[in-house]
Amino acid sequence: MEQRLSLITLGVADTAKARAFYEALGWKGASPDGDVVFFQAGGMVVGLWGRDDLAEDSTVDDPGGWGGVTPAYCTRSREEVDSVIEEARAAGATIGREPAETPWGGYSGIFIDPDGHPWEIAHNPAWEIAEDGSVVIPEYDR
Amino acid sequence: MEQRLSLITLGVADTAKARAFYEALGWKGASPDGDVVFFQAGGMVVGLWGRDDLAEDSTVDDPGGWGGVTPAYCTRSREEVDSVIEEARAAGATIGREPAETPWGGYSGIFIDPDGHPWEIAHNPAWEIAEDGSVVIPEYDR
Repeated sequence: MEQRLSLITLGVADTAKARAFYEALGWKGASPDGDVVFFQAGGMVVGLWGRDDLAEDSTVDDPGGWGGVTPAYCTRSREEVDSVIEEARAAGATIGREPAETPWGGYSGIFIDPDGHPWEIAHNPAWEIAEDGSVVIPEYDR
Repeated sequence: MEQRLSLITLGVADTAKARAFYEALGWKGASPDGDVVFFQAGGMVVGLWGRDDLAEDSTVDDPGGWGGVTPAYCTRSREEVDSVIEEARAAGATIGREPAETPWGGYSGIFIDPDGHPWEIAHNPAWEIAEDGSVVIPEYDR
């Protein structure tokens, strides 16, 4: 298994409404079937699909709520954390945590999308964001 | 907000044990602090962190179980789906769904990691996997 990931699918109540939220953030989605939505996100894809369908397809039970997976978006500056959180607020997200300094030397906030999925928006000064948006972590020795 | 994602963090019971599972799949992780683990995964990062810490940091309650997010790994062939599922089985994953043809014209299986996170391993003949592992979706008109 190569060290990579191709797609993250977020289960949602209504794919059209969820798509509208992400498009309000400036993303542009596309659907092969009028239901599932895909966003080309750098070298991978973010998908939206009905949560019941996704649970069944993923062969899991769904107790509802959060399930131990949090996506994050890294910015090139602290100011960009503030602006993305403001964009998310304007698009209808709940702000779980207003942008602030973090214990690990960065600066981040959390927005929660209308389906309850939290996104951390973070500036980590140790992580380089390339021009194409890809992220490269430094050498860590542990 | 640019159309990209930097990091997916999976909440786990024990970061060392979870790291050992992903390293048994051939991945190589690194930790800045001896606790959180990061895997450089193409142009993004997959992280492992204590689920309680992640829930608190993500400002969410955790009812346990799955929470509406499923990562997927796309392969270049059907055979590669079979071989990744076998690697995962050997590493201690539960196989939620053995590899089989899918309704959307592909071929996929599901493995569930020791912390309950399902991964779809899929060959989608319509999705191009570049040499560097990045995925490009075709034009969809909806």
